[in-house]
Amino acid sequence: MKVTELELTDVQGLPDDRRIPLQRVGIKNIRYPVTVLDKVKGTQQTVANINMYVNLPHHFKGTHISRFVEILNQYRREINVRTFADILSEMKRRLASQEAHLEVDFPYFIEKEAPVTSTPGLMEYICGLHGTLSDILDMKLLVRVPITTVCPCSKEISRYGAHNQRGEVRLEVRFKKFLWLEDVIAQVERAASSEVYSVLKRPDEKFVTEKAYERPMFVEDIVRSVYQGLRGLPEITWFSVEAENFESIHKHSAYAFTTWGKDPLKRF
Amino acid sequence: MKVTELELTDVQGLPDDRRIPLQRVGIKNIRYPVTVLDKVKGTQQTVANINMYVNLPHHFKGTHISRFVEILNQYRREINVRTFADILSEMKRRLASQEAHLEVDFPYFIEKEAPVTSTPGLMEYICGLHGTLSDILDMKLLVRVPITTVCPCSKEISRYGAHNQRGEVRLEVRFKKFLWLEDVIAQVERAASSEVYSVLKRPDEKFVTEKAYERPMFVEDIVRSVYQGLRGLPEITWFSVEAENFESIHKHSAYAFTTWGKDPLKRF
Amino acid sequence: MKVTELELTDVQGLPDDRRIPLQRVGIKNIRYPVTVLDKVKGTQQTVANINMYVNLPHHFKGTHISRFVEILNQYRREINVRTFADILSEMKRRLASQEAHLEVDFPYFIEKEAPVTSTPGLMEYICGLHGTLSDILDMKLLVRVPITTVCPCSKEISRYGAHNQRGEVRLEVRFKKFLWLEDVIAQVERAASSEVYSVLKRPDEKFVTEKAYERPMFVEDIVRSVYQGLRGLPEITWFSVEAENFESIHKHSAYAFTTWGKDPLKRF
Amino acid sequence: MKVTELELTDVQGLPDDRRIPLQRVGIKNIRYPVTVLDKVKGTQQTVANINMYVNLPHHFKGTHISRFVEILNQYRREINVRTFADILSEMKRRLASQEAHLEVDFPYFIEKEAPVTSTPGLMEYICGLHGTLSDILDMKLLVRVPITTVCPCSKEISRYGAHNQRGEVRLEVRFKKFLWLEDVIAQVERAASSEVYSVLKRPDEKFVTEKAYERPMFVEDIVRSVYQGLRGLPEITWFSVEAENFESIHKHSAYAFTTWGKDPLKRF
Repeated sequence: MKVTELELTDVQGLPDDRRIPLQRVGIKNIRYPVTVLDKVKGTQQTVANINMYVNLPHHFKGTHISRFVEILNQYRREINVRTFADILSEMKRRLASQEAHLEVDFPYFIEKEAPVTSTPGLMEYICGLHGTLSDILDMKLLVRVPITTVCPCSKEISRYGAHNQRGEVRLEVRFKKFLWLEDVIAQVERAASSEVYSVLKRPDEKFVTEKAYERPMFVEDIVRSVYQGLRGLPEITWFSVEAENFESIHKHSAYAFTTWGKDPLKRF
Repeated sequence: MKVTELELTDVQGLPDDRRIPLQRVGIKNIRYPVTVLDKVKGTQQTVANINMYVNLPHHFKGTHISRFVEILNQYRREINVRTFADILSEMKRRLASQEAHLEVDFPYFIEKEAPVTSTPGLMEYICGLHGTLSDILDMKLLVRVPITTVCPCSKEISRYGAHNQRGEVRLEVRFKKFLWLEDVIAQVERAASSEVYSVLKRPDEKFVTEKAYERPMFVEDIVRSVYQGLRGLPEITWFSVEAENFESIHKHSAYAFTTWGKDPLKRF
Repeated sequence: MKVTELELTDVQGLPDDRRIPLQRVGIKNIRYPVTVLDKVKGTQQTVANINMYVNLPHHFKGTHISRFVEILNQYRREINVRTFADILSEMKRRLASQEAHLEVDFPYFIEKEAPVTSTPGLMEYICGLHGTLSDILDMKLLVRVPITTVCPCSKEISRYGAHNQRGEVRLEVRFKKFLWLEDVIAQVERAASSEVYSVLKRPDEKFVTEKAYERPMFVEDIVRSVYQGLRGLPEITWFSVEAENFESIHKHSAYAFTTWGKDPLKRF
Repeated sequence: MKVTELELTDVQGLPDDRRIPLQRVGIKNIRYPVTVLDKVKGTQQTVANINMYVNLPHHFKGTHISRFVEILNQYRREINVRTFADILSEMKRRLASQEAHLEVDFPYFIEKEAPVTSTPGLMEYICGLHGTLSDILDMKLLVRVPITTVCPCSKEISRYGAHNQRGEVRLEVRFKKFLWLEDVIAQVERAASSEVYSVLKRPDEKFVTEKAYERPMFVEDIVRSVYQGLRGLPEITWFSVEAENFESIHKHSAYAFTTWGKDPLKRF
């Protein structure tokens, strides 16, 4: 004989008398296949790491975590800027909350041709959509872009050569109009000594090496260069940008960070 | 004016006189979207982490790493047990080698219903295909299966309760006939105190808790139980199985490992 | 003939005319052996992961990252709550900045006896000190405490047993008086279904299993229980607490988070 | 009233009739502070990640994992090449096994002066000691050494500059006489385009940049160069060496691997 849900005590729904509200309760690090928007192909299937939280008023003991997975399962074929508010609304409704948070991070692939031979290959960018719905919707787009950086100091002081390395730019953006990941990524790549490719033949390697050497940049320069590029985009209302260089002459990273615009959550 | 490949010195192709052959040269940790076989849906799109190596005879200075990416780009829509030998052959041919190695690891999702309410959800399993082609093909299937384990000692000595935890079984299999990932995973899940689900309602949670309590198992028991299940499958010629418990009463893991059959590469 | 520092162009010190101030520039993820305070033994040697940043006024092109490492090398035998302001001051002085940030994270070991047999063993806690010095000093203590949690719902609805698992509580604390790591950690451990040990003999395992079964707690309960314990400590002016359960019946985590007191940096 | 160990059933010690011997059972990923040998200072305190396993004959149900931690706690102030056999013997004796395995991995710090200004700083190397005691002792020393590599192809084909990056050499060594970690690490660093430092002033950066540009090397060259250096050391009976370049122009790594001498465990 099967036991039904109604016959079993709803322990999570019991009252709690400690008078402590919780800002976020839910599930963390669930992995799920999702479909996101792709500027060229329409959609792209990928695998996401997802966090889903709601606030919990002080008079409830716990939340019902199976409902988060049910919502995720329902929306997974269409997770994007346009459906985000719907998913957050559904979370508020089904979990009877005033606030809902959703964080979806995923590898995203863009086809990119080598700069001289045009050999095609796919490049991976780790991207994300993070949002909170209370009375208002606060939403951010996140991208991590691998780049090449050549050190201006090393170039200036050395008779030949210049140390260079792989770096990563991490960008978070608030926006008032739809933005393609592809366009944000292109903006970051333009700011580096050189962009990074998945496949380069010899003429491409020559091109990339010389271009990067002609454009030496500190992490500080990268951040300022991205800053200049983004400040001009009318869709964007706020951003933070950080650059990390996995220094070739050290075992630690060089790092720079700044923000632009008013973060609705921060005092400074 | 564009420079062509032929006008630039092929440094990798230059002779080397140190008389040191290299067993593996190539690319490591390239991330690529790939399509794999799915028992229910035919195919499944996922994102893989890939290593590709060949041996390098002692008289060559280096290998041509762009060719690995070109081969990967060509085969990415069909990476599975049936095409593996073709990809390895192509690597041997284009890199002029006697031996080629390919390692493809990816998250794989299976739809699974909760045991009582039949609520559907997707479960992630990290899977892999690793192979080497020399004169012969040596190929392995890898799966990592999350499980629940209840401690038999804790159950026996305690008046009530028993510590339990999430564990992971990691399996590597050599085979002489095609095997579905789904079947190997089901075999492992049958061996645990209970399998793990992405969504469980209260009647399911009751079922899973009681079932696991009735089937207490050490990591040692899990490994032996998987061993017994696999030894009977005629497709399998060798396997290794390890179980790791992320102990709920410790900050370290309990661990067990064994193998069955003759590993063609190992002396013992 | 050696080249001296003065003969080489100081590229970092060159002016920059883009008028973009940077909030943080410096080094990230440098690993260094450090000596911290230990309540029992006086001091403890460990290995830290360290980030050091300063702000960069808009008229400078870059910062001098070698100076960060020189400061670290000078202070590494005495990194603790008492010397933190000195290190930050030295960073501001040597890098000619208005603001300095220092983040030091390290494993910290505490000797702990098994609850019945008193068998001794060492437990690892990941701890941290993060601070910012502008006109004022803002400093936080961070600890990550592994715990055991038994699910109240599973216990209530099942005829026997209850799923339980390893969890982790992550705490950040602002304070107005010196606090021992040991005392903060003990406060968290008291809040769990049971604390976690490095070594347990059978009588200890019986004790821990039964104690945890008698004290079932959701992640929500853990957070509220830590909250109640910390709110009473007069040294503390603010804290955030989060609990994550590595669920034994799922592959994802259950999660809860809240804060108390006024965060000087946040609007809400 | 306290329950004693003897009054509780020894479930692990119960007989098992499945006739399946287990090759390894024990504990994994326990973190412990340990003291290792230091060529300059005598000893060095660090924090290790440790695995301890024994074989389990087919007639036993399980092993006693608390005994592993007790042995570790007893020897932690003296874990090195000289005490390794003692620890392994103690594991065999207390766990009543024919074979014991111990893997100890830890960050190790060496003071290193910048090449021109002699500015001192500490460099981290991840090191390890792995050993098995059956009738004979089989023991390996492991080191991971960060390096700089300049690409010979990029240098040859470009009008100026050359892409370079951080790389890592991972070495495993079997030996018949005591070896200092410092000497093995120095041997690897000599093989690279340049070694890596924790602190470099401008004259040092000029030196390192020019030296690396004068010594361009593929991963293949690094492996061969380490191979040549190690083959000449009379203490060494076997080694494997791999080099991985975190390519500055790609998001994936270039990789090379080879071995020398007869691995007692492998067929080829």
